[in-house]
Amino acid sequence: MVEAIIGLLSDFGDRDYYVSAMKAVIYGINPRALLVDITHKVSSGGIYEGAFLLWQASRSFPRNSIFLGVVDPGVGTERKGIIVESERHIFVGPDNGLLIPAAKRDGILQVREIVNEKYILERSGTFDGRDVFAPVAAHISRGVPLEEFGPPLTTYTEMDLPKAEVKDEEVKGVILHIDDFGNLVSNIPIKEFNDWRRGEDRFLLELHGRERVIILASSYEEMGRELAIIPGSSGFMEFSLRRRSAAEDLGVRVGETIHLRRASHF
Amino acid sequence: MVEAIIGLLSDFGDRDYYVSAMKAVIYGINPRALLVDITHKVSSGGIYEGAFLLWQASRSFPRNSIFLGVVDPGVGTERKGIIVESERHIFVGPDNGLLIPAAKRDGILQVREIVNEKYILERSGTFDGRDVFAPVAAHISRGVPLEEFGPPLTTYTEMDLPKAEVKDEEVKGVILHIDDFGNLVSNIPIKEFNDWRRGEDRFLLELHGRERVIILASSYEEMGRELAIIPGSSGFMEFSLRRRSAAEDLGVRVGETIHLRRASHF
Amino acid sequence: MVEAIIGLLSDFGDRDYYVSAMKAVIYGINPRALLVDITHKVSSGGIYEGAFLLWQASRSFPRNSIFLGVVDPGVGTERKGIIVESERHIFVGPDNGLLIPAAKRDGILQVREIVNEKYILERSGTFDGRDVFAPVAAHISRGVPLEEFGPPLTTYTEMDLPKAEVKDEEVKGVILHIDDFGNLVSNIPIKEFNDWRRGEDRFLLELHGRERVIILASSYEEMGRELAIIPGSSGFMEFSLRRRSAAEDLGVRVGETIHLRRASHF
Repeated sequence: MVEAIIGLLSDFGDRDYYVSAMKAVIYGINPRALLVDITHKVSSGGIYEGAFLLWQASRSFPRNSIFLGVVDPGVGTERKGIIVESERHIFVGPDNGLLIPAAKRDGILQVREIVNEKYILERSGTFDGRDVFAPVAAHISRGVPLEEFGPPLTTYTEMDLPKAEVKDEEVKGVILHIDDFGNLVSNIPIKEFNDWRRGEDRFLLELHGRERVIILASSYEEMGRELAIIPGSSGFMEFSLRRRSAAEDLGVRVGETIHLRRASHF
Repeated sequence: MVEAIIGLLSDFGDRDYYVSAMKAVIYGINPRALLVDITHKVSSGGIYEGAFLLWQASRSFPRNSIFLGVVDPGVGTERKGIIVESERHIFVGPDNGLLIPAAKRDGILQVREIVNEKYILERSGTFDGRDVFAPVAAHISRGVPLEEFGPPLTTYTEMDLPKAEVKDEEVKGVILHIDDFGNLVSNIPIKEFNDWRRGEDRFLLELHGRERVIILASSYEEMGRELAIIPGSSGFMEFSLRRRSAAEDLGVRVGETIHLRRASHF
Repeated sequence: MVEAIIGLLSDFGDRDYYVSAMKAVIYGINPRALLVDITHKVSSGGIYEGAFLLWQASRSFPRNSIFLGVVDPGVGTERKGIIVESERHIFVGPDNGLLIPAAKRDGILQVREIVNEKYILERSGTFDGRDVFAPVAAHISRGVPLEEFGPPLTTYTEMDLPKAEVKDEEVKGVILHIDDFGNLVSNIPIKEFNDWRRGEDRFLLELHGRERVIILASSYEEMGRELAIIPGSSGFMEFSLRRRSAAEDLGVRVGETIHLRRASHF
């Protein structure tokens, strides 16, 4: 038996037994698996949000980790179950785009459809996380070759996380995620932002058609009481308020567009 | 030392150190134990709800799993601590009915009272989860025979999950559980429902004295905007709304009664 | 490789991938580590609350457990990262007082600053939990001697949990914690309370300038509908309401002062 890390991400929440059912199935197949919950609080059916979190989390996992991603509003339909092998990791879950951004960053080597009934449980129809994806991930962690599970797929559901548009006069970005502190994680890469700002540390943020001045901070402690822009642990620029939720204060949601300009332009 | 799966269920929530205290005690006795949280968000003192979740979750666990169930409003009183051995699993917790429905489904082999001080910690009086049930579960996982912990009990607190009443003209059921998505899990078994419906796919649901038409769906994707009845991963019929909480929409709580009739009857 | 228990406490919540990133880093270094979540729902930046929970939880962990405590509003500033070795455990986290009460109870043997870049990852600047504390805890769990990580510190940020003042006519205490049930955990030790009460079982509780009569109970079941004082599993006296939240009912917050007098005095 092999020690292998399996990261789990879903929208199952923590009031139900669903996550435990997946883990029990995995341990039943590979008691040496090392299970790590990423989060089970993705918004219900939030494929886009789940894709972002999986993409972020997987960066910190060691090579050859396996990911079980189950944000799956199409469960019970004809949507396929897939295995995606990237240069670094293996991802198991529904063919709805959820697994793709994380796998694409590392480089996709192959995508396979899960069809071999030998490695899955009797299907209930509404819980492929337990019946299909958990046993497949567990068998992979024991070294079953990916060819065993099903044929290669050349067509699968694509997904790209949106890229920030950096022009000289402004950066146009999107809020990719709101964390538990209420920090707004944008899609503006720290490096691109630093190149663009040319030493400026005050900016105009346009959001919901309203502009406000924000200050660049390098740590949470350094922020004053005003909204700050700060390089985040995600590798992206984040918008934060000290000890308060920027998301609540600004009324922002995931997916909203922001415009950022250098304040000295005006 | 032995690898054994221990499933944990409680109403301790996740803001406190209580669950970690139980796990630390278990690992101190058996570092090879495989711990799986079922949920710690059973409503405070919700023995009935906890019994349902334990009953559901335990189906997916491999044979010889051990369960630690601590929904225990009677802690500190004379209520006993018990070990219940079923055909498949071993359950440890308070003698208040919590463990019984899960154990009864598999067939109860024996029930023992926990009395041997050798296997428990000094009692604080209000935290038998840590002081009694966790160490007992851990010692069981290391192979200590059940006779060691105390004498057999012939009388213990019974509990039955309510059974649906299936008559030709209607099915009378109860909402056993509301999941994190707001789906209503009934006590109507899928198989009995399918026999009863005789090909019908539209039904009248009576709830709170009000009737509404509902449609049978076979997957969440297949549902329209209306309330649907759908075979659930629990083995029971569930009531669902697409991407919304049926529980909130209908104002339903666990324990409420529903009546279901075939729409073509009317 | 060595089996070692690592207890994790943070204010990261459970909607983000942050906790999983720390765990993935740990397993990457020591796949035999036994990870136990204490809680990740400390209030954002709540060093005092985190210190209390770490202090409580660590009592139940076996000797030689390692604790990773990350409530770290100063991340990204010059605040140091430290390792605290006590008579029983090893604590890793920021130098802001968080780790001190737990370590002091057992007796502090040494405090070291974390400086050796060999044992830490490239820093993002805002996530030392992943980049510094997780790898250090993991290397300690594999047996790397503490001297390896950095020089001893003679000055570090102190913290003491407040002590109750016991006079004959009254006990003055503080609410240290509110648990998930809404029970109020005070800083009045059970033993000191029992010596002080001299057989009395009715008391006057003064809170927010208002007095109310409360009854001593020895278990939750024994309580009536009124507010009770009860010896808690924490080793302290707690204030509880049966099946309701005492915190909500009284409008109490962590840190508030209470006065307790024997009712027969009046």
